[in-house]
Amino acid sequence: MTDTTNTPPIGTLTVIGLGLIGSSIARAASKHGLAKEIRGGDMSEQVCEIAKSLSFVDSATTDLGAAVEGADLVVLCVPIGAFKSVGEIIAPRLKSGVILSDVGSVKQAAFTQIEPLLPEGIHFIPGHPVAGTEFSGPEAGFAELFENRWCILTPKSDADEAALAQLAGFWTKLGSKVEIMDAEHHDLVLAITSHVPHLIAYNIVGTASDLEEVTQSEVIKYSAGGFRDFTRIAASDPTMWRDVFLNNKEAVLEMLGRFMEDLTALQRAIRWGDGDALFSHFTRTRAIRKSIIEAGQETPQPDFGRSGKHGN
Amino acid sequence: MTDTTNTPPIGTLTVIGLGLIGSSIARAASKHGLAKEIRGGDMSEQVCEIAKSLSFVDSATTDLGAAVEGADLVVLCVPIGAFKSVGEIIAPRLKSGVILSDVGSVKQAAFTQIEPLLPEGIHFIPGHPVAGTEFSGPEAGFAELFENRWCILTPKSDADEAALAQLAGFWTKLGSKVEIMDAEHHDLVLAITSHVPHLIAYNIVGTASDLEEVTQSEVIKYSAGGFRDFTRIAASDPTMWRDVFLNNKEAVLEMLGRFMEDLTALQRAIRWGDGDALFSHFTRTRAIRKSIIEAGQETPQPDFGRSGKHGN
Repeated sequence: MTDTTNTPPIGTLTVIGLGLIGSSIARAASKHGLAKEIRGGDMSEQVCEIAKSLSFVDSATTDLGAAVEGADLVVLCVPIGAFKSVGEIIAPRLKSGVILSDVGSVKQAAFTQIEPLLPEGIHFIPGHPVAGTEFSGPEAGFAELFENRWCILTPKSDADEAALAQLAGFWTKLGSKVEIMDAEHHDLVLAITSHVPHLIAYNIVGTASDLEEVTQSEVIKYSAGGFRDFTRIAASDPTMWRDVFLNNKEAVLEMLGRFMEDLTALQRAIRWGDGDALFSHFTRTRAIRKSIIEAGQETPQPDFGRSGKHGN
Repeated sequence: MTDTTNTPPIGTLTVIGLGLIGSSIARAASKHGLAKEIRGGDMSEQVCEIAKSLSFVDSATTDLGAAVEGADLVVLCVPIGAFKSVGEIIAPRLKSGVILSDVGSVKQAAFTQIEPLLPEGIHFIPGHPVAGTEFSGPEAGFAELFENRWCILTPKSDADEAALAQLAGFWTKLGSKVEIMDAEHHDLVLAITSHVPHLIAYNIVGTASDLEEVTQSEVIKYSAGGFRDFTRIAASDPTMWRDVFLNNKEAVLEMLGRFMEDLTALQRAIRWGDGDALFSHFTRTRAIRKSIIEAGQETPQPDFGRSGKHGN
C-alpha cells in the first residue's frame, strides 16, 4: 500500500484518552485519511461529548472495552498512572493481531504496567511522540502537533517486524520522524531533555510564589526578564507529570543529582567571585541552541518570535 | 513640552555601548523623534562602524569622553563590569545638569561603581528596562524592544524631581511602563525573576552537554520535550551575565538557596514516591502563567506560538 492510493492503511484506529495528544492523533489520522474508522474512548462522559461535537472521531464512548473491540491499532493516550486500570479493561477485548501502542513519556513503565495484562497475539510496541504544548484536554489538540517532531518507538528485540513497520509508518504519516530505541535508554534521554527541565520549571515557579520579600504581583510584572519562559512548561498537566516522576524515578534522580551538583559549582563560583568560571560556563552553552535550531527543533526567531518586533 | 509638538524633548542623547539594548534605545529614540541629536559611543571601532552603517545614530565614536560632551541625557549600556572604567572616562566630560542613567540588571552596583566617580551637578538615576532577547550586538537591536515592557528606575530618595520626570518620560515614549523602586529591592526582585532563571538555564544546558550516557545529538533531537525552552536564555551574552552574578551575589545566593531547598523537597518526594506532594506542587503553578498572560507580559498562544499549527 502506498500514499498514492486512497485506501486508508488501517481499518479501525482506536484512541483511548482524548486529551491534547489523543485528540491530536485522531485529528491528524483523520486529516491524512489513515484509517477507515476512528474510534475514541475516554473515561469522561464530558470529554466524549466534546470529542463528538468537534468531530475528530467517528464515535466516542466511555466503554473502553467496546471501543477497542475489533480495532487494528489501539493507541493509549492516558496518564501512565492509568495504564494498569485501563489495560485491565481493554486487554480481554483486544483482537488477536492488533497493534497496541501508547504515548507515555516513560517507556519501561509501559512494559511493566501493561505487558503482564496482555493475552497472546497482541503486538505491544510502546511509543512516545516528543511533542506537546502546555495546554490540556480535547480542545487543545491539533492535527499538526507531530509535524517535524520525533516519535520514539521502543519495541522489544523480538517484536513483530511487520507490526513495527506499520506503526512506524503511521507516525511517519502523522508528520513525525521515527526513531527506534531501547526503553531503558529512552527513559534516560528523556529524563534530561524533558523530565528534569519540567521539574526545575515547576520548582522555580513554586519558589517564586512562596517569597515574602517579593510580591506575586512583582514576579508577574517583571517576568519578561527570564522567569516567564519557565512558566510555560510549569503550566503542563499535573497528573501526567506526577505519573512521569513516579514512573521514571531512577533516571530522573540520576540526572537531577548531576544538575544539582553542577548548580552547586556555579553557586560556589558566585560566592567566591570566580568570574572566569562563570564566563567559561556561560560561553559553552550557546552552541547547543544553534544546533537545535539547525535540527529544525526550534524557531530561529529571537525570543521565540514573541517579542515586540514580531507581535506580542 | 507635549507629544503633540514636533520639538524633540531632549537636545543631545548619548548612548554608550551599542549592543542589543543600546542600539535598541537609539533606534527607538530616533523612531519617536525623542532627541535632536543621537550620539553613540562604543569601545569597539567595528561596532561604531556598524552603528554608522545602520544609521541608528547620528554619529558614533570610540572616544567616549567626546561622545558625552555637552549631552543632555547619557545612557550607559555596557556590561556592569565596565561601569567603572567607562565612568572614569566620561565623568570629567559630563556637563553640569546632565541626566546620567544606565540599563544594567543590578542597581545597587550602579551606585557603588559609578556614583563615587561623579562630580557635583550630575543627575544620576539608574534604570533597568526589563526587556531583551537572546541575541547580542548592534545588529540585534530593534526599536520596538521596550514596548509594553517595564522599565524600573531606582533613584535615590533625594533625586532631582524634574530629572526623574524627564527620564521617566523618555522611557514612556520608548513604549515602556515605568516603575520607581528602591535599588536594593530591585536587586532582590530581579534575582528571582531573571538572574536565578538564567543561572539554572545555563546550568541545565551545561549538565546536558556533559553527559556520557546521552549523546549531544540525542539532546538536540529530543529537545522539544522541554529542554529547548531553557536553551534560549542560556544563549544570552556571557559577559553581561557574568557581571550580573558577580554584582548581585547576595540576592542571587539567597534566592538560589531557596530554589535548591525547594528542589530538594521535590527530589525527596520523587524518591519516596509521594505522588500527592508532586501533584499538589504541580497544580499551584498554573495560575501564575495565566496572570502573566493577563498582565500582557507573555503571549497566550500555546508553545509561545512556535508549534506546528502556527508555523515553526
